[in-house]
Amino acid sequence: MNTTLPLATEMANSLRALAMDAVQKANSGHPGAPMGMAEMAVALWGRHLRINPADPHWPDRDRFVLSNGHASMLLYALLHLSGHDLSIDDLKAFRQLRSRTPGHPEVGLTPGVETTTGPLGQGLTNAVGFALAEKLLAREFNRPGHDIVDHRTYVFLGDGCLMEGISQEAISLAGVWGLNKLVALYDDNGISIDGPVQGWFADDTALRFKACGWNVIGTLDGHDVDAVDQAIAQAQHSSERPTLIICRTRLGHGSPNRANTARAHGEPLGAAEIAATRAAIGWPHAPFEVPESLRAAWDARERGAALQQQWAERLTAYRAAHPALAAEFERRVRGDLPADFEETLLNAMLQFGQSRDSVASRKASQQVLAALAPRVPELLGGSADLTGSNLTDFPGCGAVRGGEFGGRHVHYGVREFGMAAIMNGIALHGGFIPYGGTFLTFSDYSRNAVRMAALMKLRVVHVFTHDSVGLGEDGPTHQPVEHAASLRLIPGLDVWRPCDAAETAVAWTHALQQAQRPSALLLSRQNLPAQLREPEQLVAIRRGAYVLSDRPQPQAVLLATGSEVGLAMAAQQLLDGRGISVRVVSLPCTTLFDRQDRAWRDAVLGRGLPRIGVEAGVSRWWGQYGCCAALGIDRFGESGPGPAVFEHFGLTAAALASLVEREIDAARAPLAASL
Amino acid sequence: MNTTLPLATEMANSLRALAMDAVQKANSGHPGAPMGMAEMAVALWGRHLRINPADPHWPDRDRFVLSNGHASMLLYALLHLSGHDLSIDDLKAFRQLRSRTPGHPEVGLTPGVETTTGPLGQGLTNAVGFALAEKLLAREFNRPGHDIVDHRTYVFLGDGCLMEGISQEAISLAGVWGLNKLVALYDDNGISIDGPVQGWFADDTALRFKACGWNVIGTLDGHDVDAVDQAIAQAQHSSERPTLIICRTRLGHGSPNRANTARAHGEPLGAAEIAATRAAIGWPHAPFEVPESLRAAWDARERGAALQQQWAERLTAYRAAHPALAAEFERRVRGDLPADFEETLLNAMLQFGQSRDSVASRKASQQVLAALAPRVPELLGGSADLTGSNLTDFPGCGAVRGGEFGGRHVHYGVREFGMAAIMNGIALHGGFIPYGGTFLTFSDYSRNAVRMAALMKLRVVHVFTHDSVGLGEDGPTHQPVEHAASLRLIPGLDVWRPCDAAETAVAWTHALQQAQRPSALLLSRQNLPAQLREPEQLVAIRRGAYVLSDRPQPQAVLLATGSEVGLAMAAQQLLDGRGISVRVVSLPCTTLFDRQDRAWRDAVLGRGLPRIGVEAGVSRWWGQYGCCAALGIDRFGESGPGPAVFEHFGLTAAALASLVEREIDAARAPLAASL
Repeated sequence: MNTTLPLATEMANSLRALAMDAVQKANSGHPGAPMGMAEMAVALWGRHLRINPADPHWPDRDRFVLSNGHASMLLYALLHLSGHDLSIDDLKAFRQLRSRTPGHPEVGLTPGVETTTGPLGQGLTNAVGFALAEKLLAREFNRPGHDIVDHRTYVFLGDGCLMEGISQEAISLAGVWGLNKLVALYDDNGISIDGPVQGWFADDTALRFKACGWNVIGTLDGHDVDAVDQAIAQAQHSSERPTLIICRTRLGHGSPNRANTARAHGEPLGAAEIAATRAAIGWPHAPFEVPESLRAAWDARERGAALQQQWAERLTAYRAAHPALAAEFERRVRGDLPADFEETLLNAMLQFGQSRDSVASRKASQQVLAALAPRVPELLGGSADLTGSNLTDFPGCGAVRGGEFGGRHVHYGVREFGMAAIMNGIALHGGFIPYGGTFLTFSDYSRNAVRMAALMKLRVVHVFTHDSVGLGEDGPTHQPVEHAASLRLIPGLDVWRPCDAAETAVAWTHALQQAQRPSALLLSRQNLPAQLREPEQLVAIRRGAYVLSDRPQPQAVLLATGSEVGLAMAAQQLLDGRGISVRVVSLPCTTLFDRQDRAWRDAVLGRGLPRIGVEAGVSRWWGQYGCCAALGIDRFGESGPGPAVFEHFGLTAAALASLVEREIDAARAPLAASL
Repeated sequence: MNTTLPLATEMANSLRALAMDAVQKANSGHPGAPMGMAEMAVALWGRHLRINPADPHWPDRDRFVLSNGHASMLLYALLHLSGHDLSIDDLKAFRQLRSRTPGHPEVGLTPGVETTTGPLGQGLTNAVGFALAEKLLAREFNRPGHDIVDHRTYVFLGDGCLMEGISQEAISLAGVWGLNKLVALYDDNGISIDGPVQGWFADDTALRFKACGWNVIGTLDGHDVDAVDQAIAQAQHSSERPTLIICRTRLGHGSPNRANTARAHGEPLGAAEIAATRAAIGWPHAPFEVPESLRAAWDARERGAALQQQWAERLTAYRAAHPALAAEFERRVRGDLPADFEETLLNAMLQFGQSRDSVASRKASQQVLAALAPRVPELLGGSADLTGSNLTDFPGCGAVRGGEFGGRHVHYGVREFGMAAIMNGIALHGGFIPYGGTFLTFSDYSRNAVRMAALMKLRVVHVFTHDSVGLGEDGPTHQPVEHAASLRLIPGLDVWRPCDAAETAVAWTHALQQAQRPSALLLSRQNLPAQLREPEQLVAIRRGAYVLSDRPQPQAVLLATGSEVGLAMAAQQLLDGRGISVRVVSLPCTTLFDRQDRAWRDAVLGRGLPRIGVEAGVSRWWGQYGCCAALGIDRFGESGPGPAVFEHFGLTAAALASLVEREIDAARAPLAASL
């Protein structure tokens, strides 16, 4: 240890060295951002962040989000040095298969990583979700003298995050919500991959954040630990506004020849430049070597244990004063459903299972919500400014919006992507099961956040209404045709398209029971007929697909989802009249069905019979279920009244019945055996 | 006509009345926004917009974009009254099937509609594309004394557009590019679907735009035609900055009981309220009736013809002074490829068709671009801050960025969605074929703009590199697995995933030849072996799929795309060694293959043989080609060196060969005949 350097500088250099060494060893990665943010990290992690490395799940810890996730080595170095269960060997395995130090931080894989980042802008938006969850949970559970929820959310972000549009959705909502315990530190290094940013990013960022109701500190020297430290301390006093601290830094700071160049961003410095950097910053130690004295300075275990211990004592006092509330709080942060959830589920099935009402599935969803929400208080709804269309609200849900935090329905405004990424943050924070609504077509806007929920295995529920051309007059921009099939491709996402209230009730309850999986509910604008079911069929909905209506010795199998199940049932009746027997299979959740055992799948789909699929969307998708034909829509929609549009695209019972007849004939022909 | 009212008020009322009447007749639609923006429309359309209703394709017309597309009736009323080929009967058919007045404006369907809007925020972003195209085209073709490109882009937008994140990407780029001929009029009515916006949208919009380098005028009274008129006149003098005019309006202005309520937004006023509105605004005329005197005031045909005539004279003078340039200009705005494009194509095939280099397809793409770009000057490239990774630049391409407009490669910054929607605007403007690059995973961010390109039938090319887990260390956030399959679901989009330089050259040339279709090129980060082909195979690439390597009496057919074609070829060799003959089919563009005639499809896929698909992505997708098995990746990726990740997921020639063997055995077994 070079004793002539201040401790803070040495601490920063230890991060710098670990980052450049790990990237070099991996021969892949991003050294520049960790090196540039090293002092910011010293200020925050060394002087402010309230975490306990021994228990990264301590509910009242501060949250730290690295929104510029490519700077992952900064985070890994911090986790390692602060005393998390992440060894120097883990750091040496940076970016290697099966390591705990992947290219971008992954929650669940590495202790202390709060969210998976890399897709720019989403980490900041997750952080807004963390901060909102903290605010709402504090409001719900804290009692005078008992602040059991009281922590901050810190986020590091770069130019890239601020260029992404989602950042605007995030900062606008953080501002209007007054998330004063959110502190963002902007690594303002003026360089992005294509070079100095002034040719494509000339925003006055301070002004932009001020326009959105933020407290802005700086621009300050991001390599001055004390300055950043003082700014953070100042931010902690903000009582009404989130804070942005603008830290001017040099990308790859410390590297004599690469600093402040785009080249520092995404490639190893190389042995020679690393040697030059070591000399320049006064870091004589071997790769991956950190002197014990510095390790001691970084070690946050003792302080963290004490912090958590203080909180545990507060929780004990809270438990004594408010035993029921404390038990509920502990359940909520564990993520367990209410103990009587099975009863809730049973009630829902009794209420909706035999419904005879012809009702839009979005309306059925609202009725189910009305039944579930009082019994599942962690449900936190919302809509991207389509509440009355998505029907995501429920009686007494109140509102969460600027200046109003007592409710359970968040007004996200017209911000689908922001909503989805904030929901991810809320789910990651714990204490809530977030759901949010928009039109299915606009799942395009939020798609990568939906994917991130699946990648992170988060229990969030997307309510996507207006799920087909059946929505009618709004026309092709609003009519999904490829979206159902496309969402089903995202690994780990359950996609429900229920055909009536019973299936909608199952969709909701099943979604809530998936502690490690997001769900999307695709719901109709238009009314759908209720289907009759035997009790065992009701139970079978939970298999994702089941025989809804059979015939003795069927000649074909009709596979249908959502609003087209009614069509299939009508076609079955038409065919009955022609002496042709067909089975109707309802597939409310193909992704769930695909996880059933082979026996179930075979029993439902039948063997050796022609299968015909029907869904008001792209039809080639049905090939994976061995369908020889399908009725669907393989072009964009049309503006017109819903029934007229269905007719226009030939989505009628008569057309379906004719198609089935043709396919039965074709299957009888000798040539049909080969595809 | 109520002669006590000023003409401008009467003109506004005519729009108001047509909007409420048409929505009422359709019993569906959005009356509030048209009624609120009526005076803004009078100011712009009545006093400034330079268009010729008789020729909506006049190249030098001003562009008008209705970004809040739900206000479509405003635009239809304007087009009708100004004298476009849109009759009162067309207005009466608002939102009916097969009408020219669909729920949201659709370009190509209705004369004078410049872009399809409805998905919020994208219209504004298209407008930025229009304005950039104007600036670049003017710079390229205008000569001293000859301003043949000199028009403005006007856009109306609402709160919803400004809440969407993409608006930030748009305004940031418009600001840094200094698009002074872009004038945005903000319908600031303070209401969105969920109610008064202050609970979810409290941005200081003027400050936000100023932060992004805009000239901001207002807030002014949006119902004061003269004030809006003067603001537009002032905006036209802006020499360096785009202009935002903030117009405070009342949603549903004129309606005594619905104005300023969320209810005015998206439902008909109803007969009683319409009657009350008629009385309140002094509009005694029957539904769809507009007095002749007002029609005369609106009629823009004479003025428009004169404007276009003046331009035609300028063009004649330009043609005389710069005949070659004028011919080139006219070709460019027609959208014809260069006359020698076939020669260009042939050259490309000769250069790349027999390439023996093992090269990443992203690199091959760059080489193809280097060959094409000098011969196709309308190619306007770009990247969302990944130029060196996407390899979208070419020798001498220069740059388009703040203060620098002489080049042909746009630095969009980290703004995938904005880039895609700007590309749509550029393509709609004419004069360029835009292409732009990002990582394939981040096609999620831009997805709805990709869809909009397909819906609008625009020739844009998306360069999506890093197209599989083969990208390696960046890990699952950056590794697409569902994206290729998912993009193929968008109707009208050609999705290419070439396996080597030859297929890449075909992909590019084919994409450029699609005047009415966007294309996406999915390109590898890693090197891919070159395949050997006979001339007829080279030609067959343009069929989307073809037999790359056959064997006498094959026992199975291997279907592969992109980087997995090499794997399939290696498996074929392994199987040769075991005495098993298989055919290898390369499918560089399945969407194009699906459009081939049945004979070609059957000939390529063969009949009666087991088919096995291989692609480094979701595998169930292969069902549509009758595959009995597929090798793919049905979960998220992993961080690690690319080859190790491929190995980890079992994507090896050995595994593929074994799978083929098993399937051949299974096909021989009697049970296999039924699915």
